[in-house]
Amino acid sequence: MQHPLPGHILYGGDYNPEQWSEDVWLEDMRLMKLANVNMVSINIFSWALLEPKPEHYHFEQLDRIMDLLHEHGIAADLATATASPPTWMSRLYPSMLPMTREGVRMSHGSRQHYCPNSPDFRRKSAALVQRIAERYAKHPALKMWHLNNEYGCHTGQCYCDNCAKAFRIWLQERYKSLEAVNTVWGTNFWSQRYYEWEDILPPRISPAQNNPGQTLDYWRFMNDSLLGCYRIEEDILRAITPNIPLTTNLMVAFKPVDVYDWARHMDIVSFDMYPAPGTEPSWNALHHDLMRSAKAGRPHLVMEQSPSQVNWQPQNPHKRPGQMRLHSLQGVAHGADGILFFQWRQSKAGAEMFHSAVVTHEGNEHNRIFRQAAQVGAELAKLSSTVAGASTQAEVAILLDWENWWAVEYLPGPSDRLHYMEIVGRYYHAFHQQNISIDIVKPESDLSKYKVVVAPLLYMLRPSVADNLENFVKQGGNLLTSFFSGIVDENNHVALGGYPGKLRKLLGIHVEEFDPLTPTMNNKVIIKEGTLAGTYPAEVWGELVHTDGAQALGTFGEDYYANQAALTVNKFGNGNAYYLATQSSQEFLGKLAHEICQQANVQPLLSIDSDIEVTRRITTNGESVYFLLNHQQQARQVTLPQGTYTSLLDGATVKDQLTIPAMDAVILQAH
Amino acid sequence: MQHPLPGHILYGGDYNPEQWSEDVWLEDMRLMKLANVNMVSINIFSWALLEPKPEHYHFEQLDRIMDLLHEHGIAADLATATASPPTWMSRLYPSMLPMTREGVRMSHGSRQHYCPNSPDFRRKSAALVQRIAERYAKHPALKMWHLNNEYGCHTGQCYCDNCAKAFRIWLQERYKSLEAVNTVWGTNFWSQRYYEWEDILPPRISPAQNNPGQTLDYWRFMNDSLLGCYRIEEDILRAITPNIPLTTNLMVAFKPVDVYDWARHMDIVSFDMYPAPGTEPSWNALHHDLMRSAKAGRPHLVMEQSPSQVNWQPQNPHKRPGQMRLHSLQGVAHGADGILFFQWRQSKAGAEMFHSAVVTHEGNEHNRIFRQAAQVGAELAKLSSTVAGASTQAEVAILLDWENWWAVEYLPGPSDRLHYMEIVGRYYHAFHQQNISIDIVKPESDLSKYKVVVAPLLYMLRPSVADNLENFVKQGGNLLTSFFSGIVDENNHVALGGYPGKLRKLLGIHVEEFDPLTPTMNNKVIIKEGTLAGTYPAEVWGELVHTDGAQALGTFGEDYYANQAALTVNKFGNGNAYYLATQSSQEFLGKLAHEICQQANVQPLLSIDSDIEVTRRITTNGESVYFLLNHQQQARQVTLPQGTYTSLLDGATVKDQLTIPAMDAVILQAH
Amino acid sequence: MQHPLPGHILYGGDYNPEQWSEDVWLEDMRLMKLANVNMVSINIFSWALLEPKPEHYHFEQLDRIMDLLHEHGIAADLATATASPPTWMSRLYPSMLPMTREGVRMSHGSRQHYCPNSPDFRRKSAALVQRIAERYAKHPALKMWHLNNEYGCHTGQCYCDNCAKAFRIWLQERYKSLEAVNTVWGTNFWSQRYYEWEDILPPRISPAQNNPGQTLDYWRFMNDSLLGCYRIEEDILRAITPNIPLTTNLMVAFKPVDVYDWARHMDIVSFDMYPAPGTEPSWNALHHDLMRSAKAGRPHLVMEQSPSQVNWQPQNPHKRPGQMRLHSLQGVAHGADGILFFQWRQSKAGAEMFHSAVVTHEGNEHNRIFRQAAQVGAELAKLSSTVAGASTQAEVAILLDWENWWAVEYLPGPSDRLHYMEIVGRYYHAFHQQNISIDIVKPESDLSKYKVVVAPLLYMLRPSVADNLENFVKQGGNLLTSFFSGIVDENNHVALGGYPGKLRKLLGIHVEEFDPLTPTMNNKVIIKEGTLAGTYPAEVWGELVHTDGAQALGTFGEDYYANQAALTVNKFGNGNAYYLATQSSQEFLGKLAHEICQQANVQPLLSIDSDIEVTRRITTNGESVYFLLNHQQQARQVTLPQGTYTSLLDGATVKDQLTIPAMDAVILQAH
Repeated sequence: MQHPLPGHILYGGDYNPEQWSEDVWLEDMRLMKLANVNMVSINIFSWALLEPKPEHYHFEQLDRIMDLLHEHGIAADLATATASPPTWMSRLYPSMLPMTREGVRMSHGSRQHYCPNSPDFRRKSAALVQRIAERYAKHPALKMWHLNNEYGCHTGQCYCDNCAKAFRIWLQERYKSLEAVNTVWGTNFWSQRYYEWEDILPPRISPAQNNPGQTLDYWRFMNDSLLGCYRIEEDILRAITPNIPLTTNLMVAFKPVDVYDWARHMDIVSFDMYPAPGTEPSWNALHHDLMRSAKAGRPHLVMEQSPSQVNWQPQNPHKRPGQMRLHSLQGVAHGADGILFFQWRQSKAGAEMFHSAVVTHEGNEHNRIFRQAAQVGAELAKLSSTVAGASTQAEVAILLDWENWWAVEYLPGPSDRLHYMEIVGRYYHAFHQQNISIDIVKPESDLSKYKVVVAPLLYMLRPSVADNLENFVKQGGNLLTSFFSGIVDENNHVALGGYPGKLRKLLGIHVEEFDPLTPTMNNKVIIKEGTLAGTYPAEVWGELVHTDGAQALGTFGEDYYANQAALTVNKFGNGNAYYLATQSSQEFLGKLAHEICQQANVQPLLSIDSDIEVTRRITTNGESVYFLLNHQQQARQVTLPQGTYTSLLDGATVKDQLTIPAMDAVILQAH
Repeated sequence: MQHPLPGHILYGGDYNPEQWSEDVWLEDMRLMKLANVNMVSINIFSWALLEPKPEHYHFEQLDRIMDLLHEHGIAADLATATASPPTWMSRLYPSMLPMTREGVRMSHGSRQHYCPNSPDFRRKSAALVQRIAERYAKHPALKMWHLNNEYGCHTGQCYCDNCAKAFRIWLQERYKSLEAVNTVWGTNFWSQRYYEWEDILPPRISPAQNNPGQTLDYWRFMNDSLLGCYRIEEDILRAITPNIPLTTNLMVAFKPVDVYDWARHMDIVSFDMYPAPGTEPSWNALHHDLMRSAKAGRPHLVMEQSPSQVNWQPQNPHKRPGQMRLHSLQGVAHGADGILFFQWRQSKAGAEMFHSAVVTHEGNEHNRIFRQAAQVGAELAKLSSTVAGASTQAEVAILLDWENWWAVEYLPGPSDRLHYMEIVGRYYHAFHQQNISIDIVKPESDLSKYKVVVAPLLYMLRPSVADNLENFVKQGGNLLTSFFSGIVDENNHVALGGYPGKLRKLLGIHVEEFDPLTPTMNNKVIIKEGTLAGTYPAEVWGELVHTDGAQALGTFGEDYYANQAALTVNKFGNGNAYYLATQSSQEFLGKLAHEICQQANVQPLLSIDSDIEVTRRITTNGESVYFLLNHQQQARQVTLPQGTYTSLLDGATVKDQLTIPAMDAVILQAH
Repeated sequence: MQHPLPGHILYGGDYNPEQWSEDVWLEDMRLMKLANVNMVSINIFSWALLEPKPEHYHFEQLDRIMDLLHEHGIAADLATATASPPTWMSRLYPSMLPMTREGVRMSHGSRQHYCPNSPDFRRKSAALVQRIAERYAKHPALKMWHLNNEYGCHTGQCYCDNCAKAFRIWLQERYKSLEAVNTVWGTNFWSQRYYEWEDILPPRISPAQNNPGQTLDYWRFMNDSLLGCYRIEEDILRAITPNIPLTTNLMVAFKPVDVYDWARHMDIVSFDMYPAPGTEPSWNALHHDLMRSAKAGRPHLVMEQSPSQVNWQPQNPHKRPGQMRLHSLQGVAHGADGILFFQWRQSKAGAEMFHSAVVTHEGNEHNRIFRQAAQVGAELAKLSSTVAGASTQAEVAILLDWENWWAVEYLPGPSDRLHYMEIVGRYYHAFHQQNISIDIVKPESDLSKYKVVVAPLLYMLRPSVADNLENFVKQGGNLLTSFFSGIVDENNHVALGGYPGKLRKLLGIHVEEFDPLTPTMNNKVIIKEGTLAGTYPAEVWGELVHTDGAQALGTFGEDYYANQAALTVNKFGNGNAYYLATQSSQEFLGKLAHEICQQANVQPLLSIDSDIEVTRRITTNGESVYFLLNHQQQARQVTLPQGTYTSLLDGATVKDQLTIPAMDAVILQAH
């Protein structure tokens, strides 16, 4: 299928008219036009209305909603309504309800109360999707399919007997023989050997630490189980509406759902973006870059963001004036071609009645929240013709890997302070603050287009990864990796013969011991020469490193590995491989990233001397559009590189110097 | 029935002679007389002794205890013994045991292990009450019935199938149709619509936030379920002994039990008073005022307090010398006509063996605890003829509402910092420290007798409440209410069209946004003029308030609503309606309360310039008795208003100046 | 049987060759010889390999391992393999799996997933032990039996129906009648009386505090249940191999397992020693002294310690260089005749893959961890001929009691700050820092050989204990006991008539009230005269103490018991009985211990003025061997008493002055 996005920026939100009487619907249409809305997601939680009794379907209301949208020129992102089964289903099929690790069966009464391996759930949801697809295949409002909703949310893992059975089948497919499972899981340890398939269970609560091999496979299996639900719907929809693009709203970098796996089956990657108050702008940026990279750089969508306050944090302050707009523009800056909200009209009852919406409880357009949403709508419409479909080019890649995440955070030691995404975020931030483009890719990706590759905490190396990294460096690339990388293979088996296993040659080091530090322990990194010279903190982790070809750029300052290497670089082929054996400060990481970029000749997108964020999108005509985002609470002066620019939001011609107000953005098209 | 209290102050405690051999009982009688005990509560946990086998009742021991009390002139507050069923009951009727939200069935082995909706529990407990009532109806020791014990303690909510069934019946009675339930709960949200009654369940654990409407109704239902147990006993007892007053020991302002509902069915309101070490005296005062107000000002009882240390806190220090006496006199000062202890004689085994008792493990009268109890007994005897039956008059009322409590603390946002009773306590404290009388009443109460009404955090407005408040102010009353009031109706549906809904006209404001603050956020209240001029903290909550007729007395100092109203007053009819849009300091609330009292011409009970507590009771002859309570660790000088007073504890005649020692009290009868 | 240890110091570790291919085994033999290993524990988690199907046993691999060890002169500590049943067992016998107090059934998938009262587990494990014993009875490698593994670890208490049934039988044996159970548990309290045995259950989760009598008996019962499992194996092994000594690896002072009870059935006491980073050396010392004392002074074994990092703490740093060696020598210093590790070769998979081992993931001898282990092996070999079998003599005993522990920490008040082992540790530390020998014994022990007996927090006095203490003091002994001692009898019934019950006469005091302090409360101990003169902190606990024959050495400084006794001494017969009514600082306890040792003429082992640890072992020839252990991070100068010594580790002759490097030790044989 061709590029599935329509060539303009999408703007809208989740629309739940079934919560309101029909006289409100027309008012909604008026307000949507006022806010420049051009697409809404509907039908997400409508199963109970569509199928009030088993096999009795009622589509009359949905028909009216679809028609209404079409009449008003608003596209429908039509959901398959499978995220929350009707209450009668859990009565008829009690084993459909998910179960905790402790054996507690969940009840209906909130949402997403299904086991992804329930045959009943799968059969009933497929039947519903079939009906919906057949009924609306030709409806002119239908522009996108929204499969289910936030897969894995609330029930990332289920431990019921349905899952036990499916897990065994999954294992049989993966490993063929029980002997292979025993080998991979190392079941001679603790007398865990299996002699019958039926003895294999989910890693339910047990007296001590569960088998890490079993647990890792359970993460894989549950990701596949959720994806299995998606693919059942996918197959139905592709058969009936081959030209309607498919998406589901992913949930940032969410541990149960491997974005890369899923993106292969989605036409458009979309996700829900709910940064907590005080979140670093680089955290948002990382997620946009991930979603864009997951589909090889194709524009993605923000399927949900909050117009202002949410309702599920301990306290839920509003987004401050300008913040929602800045986040929206940041999304576009990083490659999004659509910004949608949860939700259009604020509920008056139910668990999300205090979650903000574009139309507040006041019910009109005369308030801060609606006005701001309407402004953003107008601005995106202005940008649309230039920016929609524009691409992003990156010379730096950060490796992200779900299997590694699952493995490295399941504690049989050595430290509970290894929070993978946090550590990835630290490295991302260090490069992002240089104002360069970054892709977030899998370790097996083609790395040849990058000058710098960063692999934080790459504990697990799947078979081809070490070779991939060696080739990258050999051909002139610059690699930066960290402590506790290269420790295990894809089976979570330690690479024997000296850490970091298959990375030893590339890094030119040998790690004799790794030494997790308690919060009261710390060390120092001492660098004596060069631009990095100084003394920096060393926390969380220390190591006893021997160089074996590499050069020690920095050493530890204390403890029994004082004066031994803490930061090394190894010339390998035409490139360099850096290794940082501890966690240092964000300041140090920034300096190190700068140094490596210099060496790799990776330049900032705009050479301005300021703490604003800069990104670039390249239009289908090959022109550069620069996004200058000021996340600070004060205005910033920016000196532009030589040239003349058009400011796309106000049409002004700009050159030389520019002031960007606090929490504001300027978008410049270069000529 | 006539006034159910006997015209003298009751003094005594829980008496559990079944834990002791009979030779100890006579010693108990001697010690009770020594301590001026005139009533004891018996038979509370005796079901297992009374009914050792199903349908085999043995009353011989209880007969002897009743006779013994009568012989010694001590009244029996005879319990119905239904609080803890015998162990054989949970074997015969396993579904009688309560169940947690996660489906864990509780075991016997401690106490109160029953589901209030268990038909078996209800049938068996009714049979027991019938037998007890018939047997002791004419016994001369019987002066009061003590129904069950601390209803709701430990099992405020049960989630078993008995409860599920009863909940459906309760819903049918309240809402008549399933459609009405769907509407009230807003079940079109998240696909929660019910098509069959049998699909409705208690709000058991589910993957996400349960429906707030369902949860609110479950609180109502469980309160009614517990009250249902009470009413079964009530009906039996009223039929057999129409002239014996009924009580049950409530547990302060305890969330599962709506004191106002229950008080309608009780002849005497009694409660258990266990302040933690360091509790503010105003907290005790609030609860006494609540219990007195719940029965329209009739004297109440302290059914349990601790002679000294308790056993259920993390650490259990003793009450310091004088403290128990001061608490007892404070109870009388606020309207109590009886002070009883848990318990008379300290157990030598069991879960309460380290809870203090009047007779300690030493077993005699020669120790601090017994001596102090005996002193209090003697003093109450002295006060009795003057004070018993005396009334209290208040010009200030604070509104308290259980349904509001249940609704506002069930989080679908916006903040987990809204602790209703804590916030009510802050407002109570502000007025209480002015030494004025306060009633604690329901929002629907007749407010015409008050000059000031305070409605903290009145999130829910039931149908007539807005009118009640408008009428109060229109006729010259002064109302003070706070942020997040007037948000929802009785169904927990948001009042659309602008906050605070039906209070907008009365308050003359329009709240565009409420903004819950995190612990690291704060703002300021700035008041430029008048007696309140100054800058005060603003925490927990901010708002974007527009005046719409009201006058802004104070404004916010920071953030995007800086310079907009934080404290407003609206002249409405002949009165004033104040609104405080944030949580400020206790100091500020005190000033504000003082200002409002001045304006409303509410004067302190005694104009003394000291930090002692003062209350007044008005005797049946119309004379004033003033209680001067010094809760401080140092003595206080008090200058009395002109006149001569009799000090009731020592008979002295007092005028002009008076010293009250630390932790001591003086009780003055004015002439 | 004769002294079961072989006359030399054992050195080795857990060996799990089944995790490795056979070619690795020969390399293991080479490395073991290099490290001076002379014994390994094998077969601990091999049940699944030995019995792959019910009743199908396969010993071929174990045969080869036993033969290999014998060929290389390494003794086998052969485990019975019963600690982790095969997975098929939990399918065939689901009731074999343990259950939590909340009714959650544990799953297999980790280890030790058995209920100790499961008839299936007991029958199947006995059959396995029988087979193993028969097969290897005559094998020349067999030198010791290792029963099961870490009994009670993970499943200290099970609450299933098997346990309920066994608990009733246990109660019938202990109490004969149900009436006696009712009396002991005080079931007239809270209507808990039992009329049928079948109504008695484990103390499962219930609405309130479970009955303390029931809970105490459940601790006793579960200890006996675990010991019952041990004794089934013991009987089989003693019948088949009467000359092979039995041990099981205890887990320090572990609450579920009463070391004294168990030691009676063990030929050699061994235990697992895993101090957390930063643990005081005195804590290790206490446990060695306990294990030695449990078997009347016979040398014990460290069955497991970690060569370096472990994997089950939040963060797992390495043992610093020298630390493992110092801990090993400290063990020998306190009476151990063997030091073994978990484990020999580090696993490459499974839940302990990041637990250190003698052979690391590098797999060779060229690293810090192996080199250090080899050094310790060589040093123990040097010490062996002199030290093995040497004894320890102590003049000070500290009383330790499991039943007291179980009773005093089950909260029905009065304080959750009474951590028994922590308080015992404080008293131990105070005496240990004087460099004197200490035994850790039961309260009923023969105390006549001691000069000082310390009884911290001896809340429970079993029948003969008061007499035992009185006799000890009467004959000239010095007793030191603390607050909250002598409160209850063996049934957890309070001793009525005044605290501390049966200790009143001996201590010459009467405690009217005990007053648990919150963390924000504190008091002072004021001592006006003598070597202890000063003001000291008083925390956790205060008391209202009256002297009744005793002399008040110190008084409280504040609160309502200011100026009343805080520290007393009572002359009783020829001895002195001290009582400390509060918890003071470690500094004060040290001074008090010093004072009491002076008075009792207990002298340090070596009179050196330094903060190093000194112990003495007396060889079978009657010669003294002194262990001087420097736990500090700096070197220490030591002045030796007159005489000449041989330094056993290096053979040097030493006199007068000596320097001990940081984290190092010197072992001197006196001549």
